[in-house]
Amino acid sequence: MNYQKKYEEYRIFAEEVLRSALEDMHCHTEILQESIGYSLTAGGKRIRPVLFFAMLEAFGMDYRKERAIPVAIECIHTYSLIHDDLPAMDDDDFRRGKPSNHKVFGEAHAILAGDGLLSYAFELLIKESFRGKQYLTAAQTLAVAAGVHGMVAGQSADLLYSGRPLGEVGEAELLLIRSHKTAELLAAPLVMAANLAGRWETEARDFGMALGHLFQTTDDILDEIGDAAKVGKTLGKDRAEGKLTCVGLYGLDGAKRLADRYAASCNEVLDRLSGQNIETEFLRLLVEGVRNRKQ
Amino acid sequence: MNYQKKYEEYRIFAEEVLRSALEDMHCHTEILQESIGYSLTAGGKRIRPVLFFAMLEAFGMDYRKERAIPVAIECIHTYSLIHDDLPAMDDDDFRRGKPSNHKVFGEAHAILAGDGLLSYAFELLIKESFRGKQYLTAAQTLAVAAGVHGMVAGQSADLLYSGRPLGEVGEAELLLIRSHKTAELLAAPLVMAANLAGRWETEARDFGMALGHLFQTTDDILDEIGDAAKVGKTLGKDRAEGKLTCVGLYGLDGAKRLADRYAASCNEVLDRLSGQNIETEFLRLLVEGVRNRKQ
Repeated sequence: MNYQKKYEEYRIFAEEVLRSALEDMHCHTEILQESIGYSLTAGGKRIRPVLFFAMLEAFGMDYRKERAIPVAIECIHTYSLIHDDLPAMDDDDFRRGKPSNHKVFGEAHAILAGDGLLSYAFELLIKESFRGKQYLTAAQTLAVAAGVHGMVAGQSADLLYSGRPLGEVGEAELLLIRSHKTAELLAAPLVMAANLAGRWETEARDFGMALGHLFQTTDDILDEIGDAAKVGKTLGKDRAEGKLTCVGLYGLDGAKRLADRYAASCNEVLDRLSGQNIETEFLRLLVEGVRNRKQ
Repeated sequence: MNYQKKYEEYRIFAEEVLRSALEDMHCHTEILQESIGYSLTAGGKRIRPVLFFAMLEAFGMDYRKERAIPVAIECIHTYSLIHDDLPAMDDDDFRRGKPSNHKVFGEAHAILAGDGLLSYAFELLIKESFRGKQYLTAAQTLAVAAGVHGMVAGQSADLLYSGRPLGEVGEAELLLIRSHKTAELLAAPLVMAANLAGRWETEARDFGMALGHLFQTTDDILDEIGDAAKVGKTLGKDRAEGKLTCVGLYGLDGAKRLADRYAASCNEVLDRLSGQNIETEFLRLLVEGVRNRKQ
């Protein structure tokens, strides 16, 4: 399998469904439509829709029939980036190499664009749920992952524990932040694919959570030794602000060993799925790609 | 019928379902739970759940069986108040006579409390939708009313047109703001009750939109001549900031005449419903109450 080519196939389809969703959105004010469009079409790896498509194909399903769910996933991811970048939150001026949403549209419309994206995600998921109960189950998966027991809780914990000295906060707090802020929302698209398949939810979730932690651990490593031009955001910032990171807790080598352990956990789940005649090659290559990513 | 007593019965039930929802919420951080709880239990008239309950009873249904939908409605209303009060938006320090959420918990956790409430509303609506398709239809009603074609659009338009001189903006812009920012979310609970009944959606929507405009028009009148202690927020602020209001456009007497016309529209719809043996007395008294409200 040509991994890069397959990833591109998924990513390009994700861009296509996002573009067409944006055309259908028709916000009532131009500035809201532009603010939403600016962030929703800012590119990026689109790893969440890619994971959703890849898991559907692994289960032998036609991923091209699912246009609403990947859009909903990216709407929620994008809203979280816009709100996280706000001055009152992480105060980031750049995102994916471009000025953050609030630097272009102002804080008010950045907040509103986030609110609009979150609402639109659920509008899509609810509409899709008329297709059948498996879609409603998938909608529930994303709602829980995004909410006060998922991503919002993770961001709250992140703000709460930032800047506190090590010792006062440590591994438990880091895991709380990471599980909720990142891993839940990376696991969600995989679990949603399993929801549509009607089985393998546990495996999808175990794989997704390990992948989420791997992703965040390599993010910390890149924040320390990455190339800002490639990564597309300000580097070294997390540590400078006293954020809890794997590198801060375990050192650079410790973080690399941890990433290896998370990658191994991912592959163990894939072994279980392979035993049930599920095609896991792309997902194995993806784990390797995340482990060794440069951006 | 004793209108005040019946209103209290509905309002007390709304407070009860809100309190129990908050107990079940279990946010992962205490500050998030407190920030959400602070605003969700801040009292107020609870007109949206009251409208939902009253419409269900008008249709001959047992309103006490519906605990999730009123909570979802108030979560969305409360999130919109928290985000609207932020310094980047309307910059209000007081809400319902208490300091605004961000004055107590800081901007970051005010933004997050709003995000959490919005997510939680959909979590509840989606879970409820497993009860049957009429609940999914009701979920869709609220999603559309709250989103980029509803309330978020209204807030965007409000920000966009604020401070512009009359002549440059006028009646069309005011109607765009009012319909989306207020009326849609007041109509939603009524339409959701009709969704559960499986009919009368058009009447519920017509009534709700007229009532929403009536509500906003009397809000403008109170902003001009109300008693700050009773209303529980800073008065005269809208006009001072150059916001488009009915009083600004039509003068105080013109606004009062407009309120009478909206009240008449409400009653016309209730006449249509009465003709179908629907018990409309409470809703008639409610229209009168909104027309003459002092807070």
